[in-house]
Formats: sequence, structure tokens, C-alpha cells
Amino acid sequence: MKIAVLPGDGIGPEIIDQAVKVLKALGEQFEMEFAPVGGAGYEASGHPLPEATLKLALQSDAVLFGSVGDWKYDTLERALRPEQAILGLRKNLQLFANFRPAILYPELAGASTLKPEVVSGLDILIIRELTGDIYFGQPRGVRECPDGPFKGQREGFDTMRYAEGEIRRIAHVAFQAAQKRQKRLTSVDKANVLETFQFWKDIVTDVHKEYPDVALEHMYVDNAAMQLVRAPKKFDVIVTGNMFGDILSDAAAMLTGSIGMLPSASLDANSKGLYEPSHGSAPDIAGKGIANPLATILSAAMMLRYSLNRVEQADRIETAVKAVLASGLRTPDIYESGCVKVGTSEMGDAVVKAL
Amino acid sequence: MKIAVLPGDGIGPEIIDQAVKVLKALGEQFEMEFAPVGGAGYEASGHPLPEATLKLALQSDAVLFGSVGDWKYDTLERALRPEQAILGLRKNLQLFANFRPAILYPELAGASTLKPEVVSGLDILIIRELTGDIYFGQPRGVRECPDGPFKGQREGFDTMRYAEGEIRRIAHVAFQAAQKRQKRLTSVDKANVLETFQFWKDIVTDVHKEYPDVALEHMYVDNAAMQLVRAPKKFDVIVTGNMFGDILSDAAAMLTGSIGMLPSASLDANSKGLYEPSHGSAPDIAGKGIANPLATILSAAMMLRYSLNRVEQADRIETAVKAVLASGLRTPDIYESGCVKVGTSEMGDAVVKAL
Ligand SMILES: CC(C)[C@H](C(=O)O)[C@@H](O)C(=O)O
Ligand SMILES: CC(C)[C@H](C(=O)O)[C@@H](O)C(=O)O
Repeated sequence: MKIAVLPGDGIGPEIIDQAVKVLKALGEQFEMEFAPVGGAGYEASGHPLPEATLKLALQSDAVLFGSVGDWKYDTLERALRPEQAILGLRKNLQLFANFRPAILYPELAGASTLKPEVVSGLDILIIRELTGDIYFGQPRGVRECPDGPFKGQREGFDTMRYAEGEIRRIAHVAFQAAQKRQKRLTSVDKANVLETFQFWKDIVTDVHKEYPDVALEHMYVDNAAMQLVRAPKKFDVIVTGNMFGDILSDAAAMLTGSIGMLPSASLDANSKGLYEPSHGSAPDIAGKGIANPLATILSAAMMLRYSLNRVEQADRIETAVKAVLASGLRTPDIYESGCVKVGTSEMGDAVVKAL
Repeated sequence: MKIAVLPGDGIGPEIIDQAVKVLKALGEQFEMEFAPVGGAGYEASGHPLPEATLKLALQSDAVLFGSVGDWKYDTLERALRPEQAILGLRKNLQLFANFRPAILYPELAGASTLKPEVVSGLDILIIRELTGDIYFGQPRGVRECPDGPFKGQREGFDTMRYAEGEIRRIAHVAFQAAQKRQKRLTSVDKANVLETFQFWKDIVTDVHKEYPDVALEHMYVDNAAMQLVRAPKKFDVIVTGNMFGDILSDAAAMLTGSIGMLPSASLDANSKGLYEPSHGSAPDIAGKGIANPLATILSAAMMLRYSLNRVEQADRIETAVKAVLASGLRTPDIYESGCVKVGTSEMGDAVVKAL
């Protein structure tokens, strides 16, 4: 089993260190190979996704990813900016299914900006399509406006699109995930305005025929954004496109108030995957040893579960994280009075000990 | 001054009745002409936006709009569904600037699902571009996928686009609105992925040169969705495109927990406008006399302020609404124990009395 480890920028290296520490402590031999990505990739070889890094990712069974991005790369042309690395990895590895759980740990209920009764026990799974939609659709660019009242001016434009097979495969993933949970799936679209999402809705409805045990509901994206604020616990599994999923998964993560705890998985058709924390690279606290490594450690657990077929090891890590939380250890982002404040590597050590 | 009154479907007629009652009580003569729209338009003449209704709207100084939509029209082809009326009115009347305030009335702080300290005193203004973006961009439809791994399959597709002049005019509106408030403007984009919104960001940055007294911040839409949940009071004015604005304005409205209180205005370049409550047609409670008419009454106040140049009358209505809230009257959607529960028309009467 070969794991590509891509620490990236900002707090990436620190939090990846802790996840690697935990993986090593499992008492199994994983082959881990490190490579630079994002700003670090640009520094090393002039591109956020260096060829050698992509090659390593393609050859590995799974990718453990830290985070990319730093203000100092803001002035680079877009193709060279750190976040292009993650888009490139998704596209080249065909990681079309993004799993973003939004779970509120009982110990951290106070961290949410929502009232406890609204979010306690929250456990939503957002499944975001990750290789299609307006993220990659062609044509796109800046051109001369071809018609209408602004004809002749410059205009920016992009193409949203979803092919039938693309919708079918993410729908199957979502229905199957719902089958393993409460058997309720909400497909989020904007069928009242967008042709792409009327088509999406029709295909999802068709795939539903193969999963009669799952209750399917369709919801407009604006309403979904409202319902996430109003009554998030009503959701079980949400499936949506790349653009809406970007927005809703971040909103859902923030409902918990503890985005430093939330892992994510991006899978291809053969359950090869890329695993990364849901939070960003937080350049403002990088190098200070205070970042929360738990989302990355839990991402490593997802990796063991989904890509490396080590379900028991995944359980061990998740149980250890819960034990550490129960013991009262907290990094500053989730600290509350009465708890014990610890740094990044102490938190990693505590998880290792709890294993 | 001529007002086109379009009650629409669901609770639309009931809530419009109350707003009309309040307008009549101001002691001024407004010419009000009623016309069917949405499902009611379809029933009356086979189209959600009948020609006569559109003509009336075009000839009036302002449009007072209830709400459209009912499940019974779900099976109609899209071009005939009620919501096409609102899209058609926006496009034909060139209502490019949508003002959606998200205000939390102190008396209703308990209605929010967020903790009081996070939302008390909330007062955000979202300005959404309303006639461009992927809502109207051509081409769109279902076609044969021209390339890539899904070549030859059917695909749904849409075009996102913004011309320079379209971005400039909404940016001017937003900077000027910010000048009248706390002078802070957040422009929401997805410049790291979309060409349209890199272009948007560049143009907004350019327009900013004319408003040096306003602090401009750029924020990605996923982050904006998070910050609305995490610390909504940090925002003053938000400006964004049609699609992102649809999602974020609904999320922001729901932060207050009392969407039955929130008006909206959609303006053209000459401050002619369409005014409607931010909530929908709620067919489940239609005809029961329990809908909250205050968002519609406050929309009428916005109409007096922005389109009819009757600022004092607008103030009178807004003051009356506050007085009614302070007196403890509540429709069921905002009812809390200790208050007096009233119906739609009692609430309208109370506002008239408070004038
Ligand atoms: C960095 C950016 C391109 C990316 C996205 O929009 O997908 C990020 O927001 C995410 O959700 O992983
Ligand atoms: C009904 C629908 C077409 C409309 C929109 O998406 O603009 C609505 O959601 C709104 O925000 O007014």
C-alpha cells in the first residue's frame, strides 16, 4: 500500500506530520512518499502541481493532502496559484466523488454559533460532484460580448455542464451512501432556472428507481442554504454539483463551529482517493504549532477506511480521537474554559497514546 | 403615481391585501391597478406572465408583487411555471439591482436559530445583480456532449456571463449604498475558479477607485457562506452576482429566523422597481389567514422610498411596524409565548392603526 503524502502550504506540513505520526503508530508498514504541492510545489519547480508530484499521486493507492495557499502567491497568474494544484489533482485522478461529513462532536457543541438544540447531534454527509460542472466546462474566458445590450464590450464567461454519465455515477455513490445511513437523500439543484440542473434532477430521479429503499427529495439550492441554517438535522445525505457543493459543504461545516475537526475524502471510481482536512491552509497561524491536526488525522482514518481497506485501523483512530476529546484536550480553535489547551504536536501525541 | 399590484399565488393575495390597506391609509391617492401573475396568470390566460400584466408593469411607476408558485403547477413545462413570471418581469423591466436587507428586529431575536450574541442587531444589506449571470446566459439547453470522456451522451449545459457594463452598474449601486451605511463593501466572487468572476473582481476593483471612502473587501463565495454563519455582523453591504446572490441572500435572511419580516426591492437604472417579500408563496398555509403580511407591508415602504419618492410615508410605515412589534402582536411564524397571536388581516389592521 503506497501513500502519497503532500503537505502543501501554511499549516499543511504541521498537521500532516501529526497524521503521519498516527499512521506510523498503527503498527503496520505503509509506504509513504512525500512530495511538494501548492505554493511549495511552485517554489520547488515553478508549478503548483509539479509533474513528479502528479506522477507520484497517480502511482499511489491514496493521497494524504495537507492544505495549499498563501497570500504571497496572490499576485501570480491564476494557472500558477496554489489552488490549481487541487483542481489538477481532482481532474487527473478523476476524483469525482467528494465526501464531506459535517458532524458535531458532543464535547464541542458549544463551539457552534447555532443554538445547541438546533445542532446537537448533527451528522450530515454532503456528497459533492468534483470533476464536472462550471469548474471545468469549456469554453470559458474573456471575450467580446456577442449580443444583447452590452454587445461589443468585454465579458467574462464560463460553461456549466453535466453529462448524463457524470450525473449517474455520482447519484449511485450518493444512493449507496444513503443506504448505509438513514436512507434519506436530498438532491440539491436549481432546476427552476438552470438547464443543467433540470437535467440533473431528471437523471437523479431515474437512478432512484434502482434504490427504492432510499427516500429521495429534491431541493432548490437557495432553499437548501436556508434549511441548513433553519433545521440542519433534518438532512441525512445531500448530493449536489461541484459549484453548489462548494458553497453548501462549507456552510454545513461551519454549522458545527469546529471546522478544524472535519475530514474529507475525494474518491475515484475504484475507491482510490485523496484525503484532506475541510479547512484551509491558515497562513496566519502557520509555524506557530497551534493548528488543530484532528481533521487531518480523521482524514487519514477515512483513507484507511475507503482506499486502503483497513476498516479496523480507521475505527481505532476515530475512537482515539473521541477519547482525546473526552479527556478535555483542545487546540486553541476549539478551546473552552475548563479544558486543557494543547498545541499541534501534543494533540498528535495524545491521539497516538490513545491508540 | 401608478402602482401595478400583482398578488400572485398562495398567500400572495392575502398579504398584498394588507399592504394595499396600509397604502390606502396613508391619506394619499395612489393609482393602483391589479393584474394576475404566476399560477394566477396561467389560469387567467395560459401564461404566468400575461401580456396585459407585463404591459401594466411596464407602464407603472412601481410594481408591488406578492408571491408566485404552487405545487399544482409543478408538472407544467418549465416555460409555463409560475416562477417564470418573476424572471420575465426582471428581464423586461431591466431590474438589475436587487436589494435584500437581512435585519433582525430586537423583539424577534429569539426567532433565530443562531445564538443571540451572534445575530442581535444584525443589519446586512445584500445587493444581488438580477438580470445577468447564468440565469439568462445563452446558449443553454440539453445537447450531445461534444468532447471528453462522456462524448456522445446527452448533457445539460448553461452559460455564465457578465459584461463589463453590467458589472460596473451594479458595482456603482453597491458602492453608493455602502456610502449611506457603514462604508464597507464585500464583493463576493469565485475568482479562483471562474473566469466570469475573475473579471467581476477586476471590474469591481476598478470601480472602487471612484469610491475611496468605501472599504472594499473581496471574498470567495464558499468563504462568504461560512462567514455568514460564523460572524454575520461583520458584514455591512455585500454585492454579488445573480446565482451566488440567490443562495447567500436566502441564507442571510434565514439567519434572522423571521423571513416573514424581510422585504426586497428590485430596481432599474431609473429607480423604477418591483417590490416583494423575501419569502415565498407558502401554498401550505394559503387561505388560512395566518400568513405574516409585514414583509409585504415593508416592501410597500421600500417602494415609497425608492420609486415613489415618498420618504416620509415610508418612514411612517416602518415606524408603525416597529410599534406593532413592540406592542407584542405576532403572526404564528414569529409567535413566542408572552405575545399576542394574531392573523394576517388583524396584523394589517394593527399597522394601519399605528400609522
Ligand atoms: C481552492 C478551491 C479551488 C476549492 C474549490 O472551490 O473547490 C476549495 O474551495 C474546496 O472546496 O476544496
Ligand atoms: C423563483 C426563482 C426563479 C427565484 C430566483 O432564483 O431568483 C427566487 O429564488 C428568488 O430568489 O427570487
